[in-house]
Amino acid sequence: MPILLPELLWLDGAFRRGLGVDVDARTGRIVRVGAEAELLARAGDDLVAGGPAAELVPSTAVPEYVRGGPQVERLPGRALLPGFINAHSHAFQRLIRGRTQWRPADAPDADFWSWREAMYAAAHALTPEDVFAVSRFCFLEMLRAGITTVGEFHYLHRDRNGSPYDDPNELALRVVAAAREVGLRIVLLDVAYATGGVGEPLRPEQRRFATPDLDAFLAQVWDLRAAVRDDPLVTVGLAPHSIRAVPREWLRPAARWAADHGLPLHMHVSEQPAEVRASLERYGLAPVELLDAEGVLSAAFTAVHATHISDAEVQLLGETRATVCACPTTERDLGDGFLPGAALRAAGVAIAVGTDSQTAIDPLEEIRLLEYHERLRRQRRVLLTEPLGDRLEVAPVLLDAGTVAGAHALGLDAGRLRAGACADLVAIDLEHPALAGWTDESLAATLALCAPADIVRDVWVGGVRRVEARRHALDHEALEAFRRVAGAGVPTPGAEPPSN
Amino acid sequence: MPILLPELLWLDGAFRRGLGVDVDARTGRIVRVGAEAELLARAGDDLVAGGPAAELVPSTAVPEYVRGGPQVERLPGRALLPGFINAHSHAFQRLIRGRTQWRPADAPDADFWSWREAMYAAAHALTPEDVFAVSRFCFLEMLRAGITTVGEFHYLHRDRNGSPYDDPNELALRVVAAAREVGLRIVLLDVAYATGGVGEPLRPEQRRFATPDLDAFLAQVWDLRAAVRDDPLVTVGLAPHSIRAVPREWLRPAARWAADHGLPLHMHVSEQPAEVRASLERYGLAPVELLDAEGVLSAAFTAVHATHISDAEVQLLGETRATVCACPTTERDLGDGFLPGAALRAAGVAIAVGTDSQTAIDPLEEIRLLEYHERLRRQRRVLLTEPLGDRLEVAPVLLDAGTVAGAHALGLDAGRLRAGACADLVAIDLEHPALAGWTDESLAATLALCAPADIVRDVWVGGVRRVEARRHALDHEALEAFRRVAGAGVPTPGAEPPSN
Repeated sequence: MPILLPELLWLDGAFRRGLGVDVDARTGRIVRVGAEAELLARAGDDLVAGGPAAELVPSTAVPEYVRGGPQVERLPGRALLPGFINAHSHAFQRLIRGRTQWRPADAPDADFWSWREAMYAAAHALTPEDVFAVSRFCFLEMLRAGITTVGEFHYLHRDRNGSPYDDPNELALRVVAAAREVGLRIVLLDVAYATGGVGEPLRPEQRRFATPDLDAFLAQVWDLRAAVRDDPLVTVGLAPHSIRAVPREWLRPAARWAADHGLPLHMHVSEQPAEVRASLERYGLAPVELLDAEGVLSAAFTAVHATHISDAEVQLLGETRATVCACPTTERDLGDGFLPGAALRAAGVAIAVGTDSQTAIDPLEEIRLLEYHERLRRQRRVLLTEPLGDRLEVAPVLLDAGTVAGAHALGLDAGRLRAGACADLVAIDLEHPALAGWTDESLAATLALCAPADIVRDVWVGGVRRVEARRHALDHEALEAFRRVAGAGVPTPGAEPPSN
Repeated sequence: MPILLPELLWLDGAFRRGLGVDVDARTGRIVRVGAEAELLARAGDDLVAGGPAAELVPSTAVPEYVRGGPQVERLPGRALLPGFINAHSHAFQRLIRGRTQWRPADAPDADFWSWREAMYAAAHALTPEDVFAVSRFCFLEMLRAGITTVGEFHYLHRDRNGSPYDDPNELALRVVAAAREVGLRIVLLDVAYATGGVGEPLRPEQRRFATPDLDAFLAQVWDLRAAVRDDPLVTVGLAPHSIRAVPREWLRPAARWAADHGLPLHMHVSEQPAEVRASLERYGLAPVELLDAEGVLSAAFTAVHATHISDAEVQLLGETRATVCACPTTERDLGDGFLPGAALRAAGVAIAVGTDSQTAIDPLEEIRLLEYHERLRRQRRVLLTEPLGDRLEVAPVLLDAGTVAGAHALGLDAGRLRAGACADLVAIDLEHPALAGWTDESLAATLALCAPADIVRDVWVGGVRRVEARRHALDHEALEAFRRVAGAGVPTPGAEPPSN
């Protein structure tokens, strides 16, 4: 309980009528998904039998109460979907949204690498309190956009001088606390970071990211995991940052450690051609080939970006059942290039999505760009498809990328409406003018390919409604706190990072 | 009057404080743009001197009333910009949003041409009342998104059997009436359509578009122009559909007629490679070369799409000061390919934008894709720029594409806040969480590159506020009427068009 009865419910690749979801806010899980009549009858049985809801509702009041009262909620004009999974995020980068869209008049060029300098400068300005405030506001924006889980790729470990905090997990715990406060599910992907480039020492402006000793870092991750163990909304994953930022020798032990403890394993992979060149030069292997040689690839592994991988690397990812996390709004902003989306799908690689740099926070925009970028390149339409009846449909592929694939990448039983899964749900406003003209058959496509972010009306995480009619209890407070940080001395991007 | 005093005002490529706009709802024009104190003092003078506002406000009440009353409106937390210009639209296509995102399982492929069949089927189902209802709803969606002028590329002329209506302008006048009812400024770009492809007869499914006789068609445009002459919100332009749909012999006389009467001239140009091939085959010239040979190119000419033009054609457009209207949300949807954006700018071609197929109605999304698509292709950032102080900025280029360039393409004194221009304005909600963190310096970039459609709060056309706090007086009525059409037998895309 409660039982949610929407007008339409997304199940097995289609929107369907007459169905509902019974969620348990105490366990945070879906009790069952089924026909409305069956759900109501079972709920009545549970109550009469002194089942889980009996303590809340007097059994004498049952059928009327169940049908009319707060334990059963009809959601007219709304379609219910699993909440979206944001499989790759750097929450603090929300701070530089819109602040890097220029270059000095005397700069010959701007690219990923010049953007990164601006991003480093922002990272270096933040106190632990700032990290909390910025993350909380960013997570709230995610919730309102229908994201119910974030995979936070967290590499801010040290203080502004590069010294460890008394608790090395100080900043990770601030980020976790931010997610907890707004009620967002979080998988803290704790990042190992030891080199400034392939075979290069760490640069001064990377000092807050430093994890110079792998064993010490894994111990730190272990401590973090212990600290959050009792929280059903928080889990931990391991993230060697990239082959740029960790030495080859770390890859195998890190991957083994993650596997031994059942943790998801994420890395940035081949976002830029320079990384591929450096890898080939140093190791004689492209990045995914290197990861394969070191035993990193598996169904628990997620390669973030993978914009510059070869056909052979696509095959390696497919054979090992790895996931690729695309971040198309970031990849277009940073000029990273195109995901080989159709090739990955053909090889059996699941594609998840992430908001990454937070230039936009809109899971629908992320998923639709998978298809649209493919169309732009190939000058054809309807490319990432799966069969549904006698049609090839795009929408189920895209919605799966935003839900099922992301949940898999983060090691969660989420992203699907089914008994036992996380009760993380999104209600779409079917009255929104942008959707007008939808039919049961076309709604998924209108939503996945044409709808603005504000079609998301309500959001539940762990069975608790956190966003109702587009509002969250902390909207005002979180915005004000964010503004205080954003207004107070965020370095002008392009300026020198603060000195040691 | 009224005098609008926003927190920030977009002027000469930057957001500035302490400025306001004095608009005259009777003329529909901007009276002046200036410093707040000066505007208030002048307004007082006008009133005392029995100026234009005196009839509305008793002169004895002047300074207090002017400062505090409804004649002066402060817009705290809002930034004022010129309204966006949608230079290329087919309003009726709003009906198939989300309905063409699949293909039959046995279809080898989907592309622009297969999409066009679905679009034709929708076009053929519409009664004049339907055309009004669909256009009105679509225009309302534009207004709410901050669009204050639409260039409606109108090619629905005949009834479902291909016969002329009693008034050949029947459907054009329905479209105009739809815009007038919601208060959107419209330039009806009346479309000549005579061939089914280069050198091919019209196909049966194109029969509603037919204008088989150029002189008769120009007479029809003349009549339309006369019918709307007294309406300050309505003007007319001429639009030979494309070199696919009009014979070469029509180009020169059509262009001359438009020039003689001072009308803007628009054509679809090189949206698909097949058009370029057909042009080369038939004429030995690429489409823009053909237009040049026939004297079509000028500062009054707009080439819509221009996705597949050569460097030489880019130069021809630049030399003749023509405009290109890009429609990037449509071009990505239809797999048209990329605009040569940077090359066009380097050649001096102004770039306007249009929502075209209405797959999305969001002028900010159109303008940002100009830059983002360029980044995806070239793997660099900050590409479409102009100097502002010691910086190269993207945002002014994009905002100009959405305003100044579109107004020029449609032959209007609009798109800029200056005395005498159309009083078409948009107020952005600076409290929107997606903008949080903006500074006076970064706001334009956040808006142009990162903001969702619902940051638009208020919209004025001709000095009259039509959208207030995201609502329009006709929201409900227009939605209901649209639904009746959308629900009632829109042919399934891909199905056969109705028979003759």
